[in-house]
Amino acid sequence: MLTLQDIAITQWSQLTRSEQQATLARPEQSRSAQLKETVRNIIERIKLEGDVALLDYTRQFDCADIEQLVLDDAQKQALLAQVSDRAKAAIDKAYDNIRAFHVAQTPEDITLTTSPGVQCTLKYTALESVGLYIPGGSATLPSTALMLGVPAQIAGCKTRVLVTPPNKQGEMSPEVVYAAEKCGIETLVMCGGAQAVAALAYGTESVPKVDKVFGPGNAFVTEAKQQLSQNDSGISIDMPAGPSELLVLADDTANPRFVAADLLSQAEHGPDSQVILVTPSAAVASAVQAELVTQCNALPRIDIARQALASSRLIVTQSLAEAVAVTQRYAPEHLAVQTEDAAELSAQLTTAGSIFVGHYTPESGGDYATGTNHVLPTYGYAKNYSSLGLLDFYRRYTLQEVTREGLAELAESITTLADIEGLDAHKRAVTIRLEAQEGNS
Amino acid sequence: MLTLQDIAITQWSQLTRSEQQATLARPEQSRSAQLKETVRNIIERIKLEGDVALLDYTRQFDCADIEQLVLDDAQKQALLAQVSDRAKAAIDKAYDNIRAFHVAQTPEDITLTTSPGVQCTLKYTALESVGLYIPGGSATLPSTALMLGVPAQIAGCKTRVLVTPPNKQGEMSPEVVYAAEKCGIETLVMCGGAQAVAALAYGTESVPKVDKVFGPGNAFVTEAKQQLSQNDSGISIDMPAGPSELLVLADDTANPRFVAADLLSQAEHGPDSQVILVTPSAAVASAVQAELVTQCNALPRIDIARQALASSRLIVTQSLAEAVAVTQRYAPEHLAVQTEDAAELSAQLTTAGSIFVGHYTPESGGDYATGTNHVLPTYGYAKNYSSLGLLDFYRRYTLQEVTREGLAELAESITTLADIEGLDAHKRAVTIRLEAQEGNS
Repeated sequence: MLTLQDIAITQWSQLTRSEQQATLARPEQSRSAQLKETVRNIIERIKLEGDVALLDYTRQFDCADIEQLVLDDAQKQALLAQVSDRAKAAIDKAYDNIRAFHVAQTPEDITLTTSPGVQCTLKYTALESVGLYIPGGSATLPSTALMLGVPAQIAGCKTRVLVTPPNKQGEMSPEVVYAAEKCGIETLVMCGGAQAVAALAYGTESVPKVDKVFGPGNAFVTEAKQQLSQNDSGISIDMPAGPSELLVLADDTANPRFVAADLLSQAEHGPDSQVILVTPSAAVASAVQAELVTQCNALPRIDIARQALASSRLIVTQSLAEAVAVTQRYAPEHLAVQTEDAAELSAQLTTAGSIFVGHYTPESGGDYATGTNHVLPTYGYAKNYSSLGLLDFYRRYTLQEVTREGLAELAESITTLADIEGLDAHKRAVTIRLEAQEGNS
Repeated sequence: MLTLQDIAITQWSQLTRSEQQATLARPEQSRSAQLKETVRNIIERIKLEGDVALLDYTRQFDCADIEQLVLDDAQKQALLAQVSDRAKAAIDKAYDNIRAFHVAQTPEDITLTTSPGVQCTLKYTALESVGLYIPGGSATLPSTALMLGVPAQIAGCKTRVLVTPPNKQGEMSPEVVYAAEKCGIETLVMCGGAQAVAALAYGTESVPKVDKVFGPGNAFVTEAKQQLSQNDSGISIDMPAGPSELLVLADDTANPRFVAADLLSQAEHGPDSQVILVTPSAAVASAVQAELVTQCNALPRIDIARQALASSRLIVTQSLAEAVAVTQRYAPEHLAVQTEDAAELSAQLTTAGSIFVGHYTPESGGDYATGTNHVLPTYGYAKNYSSLGLLDFYRRYTLQEVTREGLAELAESITTLADIEGLDAHKRAVTIRLEAQEGNS
């Protein structure tokens, strides 16, 4: 049972500076020495033993005794046959919207003549190989398979490997397989946790080595991504991951039932989810508090939601402007703006992963089907990391082509800068060319 | 003295698979336990003691006994007065080209109606605050100040902080100050090493805290960036850094004098620089070998270049196609293509930081003045990291605005996916809205 006492209402202006800081602080992340050591050992063993270790960890951590990591065609077909028409239609609709919004992000190369005879180009190229991590365990997450699989498909990454832990019966989720098929992912691997990320980073007999690993996960997955992105595997990762968050910015036009429903939809993700209401209206805060109690007690996942609400806040500010400032400072992963003129207000809000504008835009819309990506920066990283998009499946590099005349024109600048920086060979690479007889190349 | 014996020529096809791997291996990076511990202690002390520790480390590591970290106007004016007209003109020319090529990269927001009543937007916003690290020590690097300062200026990052170690007289390089002024950077701080990165990450009395730190540096700077990008400071960084590299891909139309000059311009950067020639022409390889000896022995920085050449390679392949494959596999930071139809061949080459196309495009052109950025992925990261560009000074985030009708249209997809994923509150956030009387919001 959740009661009113479990959810405090905070008056922002009555807090000291350090209390304000504490109010917006994220729950501390456990990156303990023991976690680091466990993950380091898992990585080391996967690197040395490959599939043998991967199968062993899958038995140990996922309680699944499988003999074959990669799904073959027969397995895929058998799983696909289990997917209901209703599930297919839901995934198809989400796929279409996600695809449309990500296709619209297709980058274009840029070519410019910066000075006569000097042509510079910025080119985009799809990453050659990507690993897509789909969390498993109790839930099955076809939506995450779409969020990672669709942009990888549009970019045209040649090698796309999806990994996800099997259930205790040693099977992959049929809906995840259906989503993966839509995205044209050929290699589906039954493994999860730190061991799956390590397998993608180094490659094993069954799992192709990839250049970049995407996707959310638990503390082990996150730690493995962190370690592998700085070690000899040479992989890169999408972004640092933390528990999921929602901040609702509401004024007195907000419907407290909608606000409470949104806060709970975030709270049910996990006990470490953080949900925050910021509003200049004390009446809305009280009404949301009451609605949270009513609605929470009717939820199947009440235990998870209750724990999440314990570290959550209902903050009353003195003005809408102050509410905006608090929001910008918190930098939420998900930001719902439920105010009059929500679109106008949203233009002032820049530090968020994704913004849900207006009373009829629930966060769960973007989680699944509006078309935006649901892989977003958490834990305050919405200040300096981008939301996942098509561009994360490309890399940018440059070219320049200079004619003899173009080089002559740049020579004075290059050689002077080389002099200032004390780099004589840099200078000579220019002068040796200009001294050469034309055509002597 | 460098002799022919110091530079071996390798026949690629005669190597075993593991010899090929060793030939393309990067020199191992020392990320020793001791380095990590030293940097961890420096970070901890800066976090606790701020300016006091920063001044102390500057005395200790840069041998500069300064009392004031941030340049005031009088100091700036005095330094600017020392910059020669020739230096100003060289920096102005480089600035113009870099600015033109980076302005051309200005991103545009994307808005799309993915289904009726569902509008999705991808927005770009400049990072609020950025820290720009300019290495110092023996050299002074105004070019790096431009490469970081110009895109920060174009993006319009509000807080731009440049840090660079002072010389032993406690002064900043006049040319760096001039470049910074051109880029409109107001805060110039005399500090370097791990302590400077820590100061940017946490802020001190003098140094503003920033959201993202850019720029190359030595092993201490690199280690500090790695640690701080994964700790409680919450900063992000541009990319992992390693020693500089150049690979020249040449055929028999290449001029061995030009090739050798380019290889040496890279080799003089530091003893750990790696330079590689890949060519199907044994004659070119021999001629370049001879030219390296001649030219190297005439360089002021011969000692550095000699050490770098020790870990460098001249590789002869059986065909141009094989040379391309070797190049793609190595994924060099800098790639010079000195062949017939260099532009055409370059279109096949995708794993490089920056490509220098044709006989008259020396690497030092791009280091300074063509317009491309010289902050590039090294150490094989040209497979999965982008070259620095304007976009690195922005972040992307999304918005969605859904009408009641739009939500009704998406409802079946959202609620079905919520059912599959077992997230009841996600479903309720939709149904509660559609059950509500129209206008009851």
